[in-house]
Amino acid sequence: VTKRYWEDFAVGEVLALGATPPVTEEAIITFARQYDPQYFHVDPLRAKDSIFGGLVASGWHTASMVMRLWVDAIVSHVVSMGSPGVEDLRWPAPVRPGDSLTARAVVLETRPSKSRPEMGLVRWRAETANQRGELVFTMTGTSFIGRRPSS
Amino acid sequence: VTKRYWEDFAVGEVLALGATPPVTEEAIITFARQYDPQYFHVDPLRAKDSIFGGLVASGWHTASMVMRLWVDAIVSHVVSMGSPGVEDLRWPAPVRPGDSLTARAVVLETRPSKSRPEMGLVRWRAETANQRGELVFTMTGTSFIGRRPSS
Repeated sequence: VTKRYWEDFAVGEVLALGATPPVTEEAIITFARQYDPQYFHVDPLRAKDSIFGGLVASGWHTASMVMRLWVDAIVSHVVSMGSPGVEDLRWPAPVRPGDSLTARAVVLETRPSKSRPEMGLVRWRAETANQRGELVFTMTGTSFIGRRPSS
Repeated sequence: VTKRYWEDFAVGEVLALGATPPVTEEAIITFARQYDPQYFHVDPLRAKDSIFGGLVASGWHTASMVMRLWVDAIVSHVVSMGSPGVEDLRWPAPVRPGDSLTARAVVLETRPSKSRPEMGLVRWRAETANQRGELVFTMTGTSFIGRRPSS
């Protein structure tokens, strides 16, 4: 895959981030036991009586799975210089065992850094859907990305 | 520990969320290999040449560790009815192997739900610091929390 620079990101561009393998019950429970041990994330039987009607992934697990897609599709092909933060994380529908998550990001804004001429900012909104096309996670963020070296 | 209801949260109250055990290099690498395999999260040697000067935890790992503190300190003592989302995640300083993270949340707003009389909303801002008192993670969020049953 070709290296990408800040100059290669255009407002309105849709970045395809690919899809996860089906999320297993085991992965959901393993993550949640360590980081989010609410019963509807760790106990398939008790989860049936929850508002979700069954086991669902921690929202932080979903966010982390989407981060992996973002790293593989984008970060590994640019000079990544970090991020000032992310905003407005929403989980409009639960992620259940067997779901496969497909993510994309739309470029909202690009601008050069005022303080660091070697990088630029890319602001994006990411949307993640399950295999039925239902949105399960959205967030907005900004990435610092290396500029094309002048030749 | 006494059960808490929505009525027990007061604007301006500081919720002590406790502290994590020291974060191990192994935990940082295990998380990042799966969810955020950037070299400064997975490769201690190469990380020395990064902008961080050494291995640092994925921001999503830090967020997940804070979620665990939140679950143990708050969620497990209320009727948790989920969250519409979280906002404004910032990572002002890196988390390194050996760091212990202490978190607290300040209650910003409380209001009853208009549509669901059995619950109320608590809006909060969480701050997480390392053992030197440096802020490493901040976020703002809203939780749906069960109200005290009328007797």
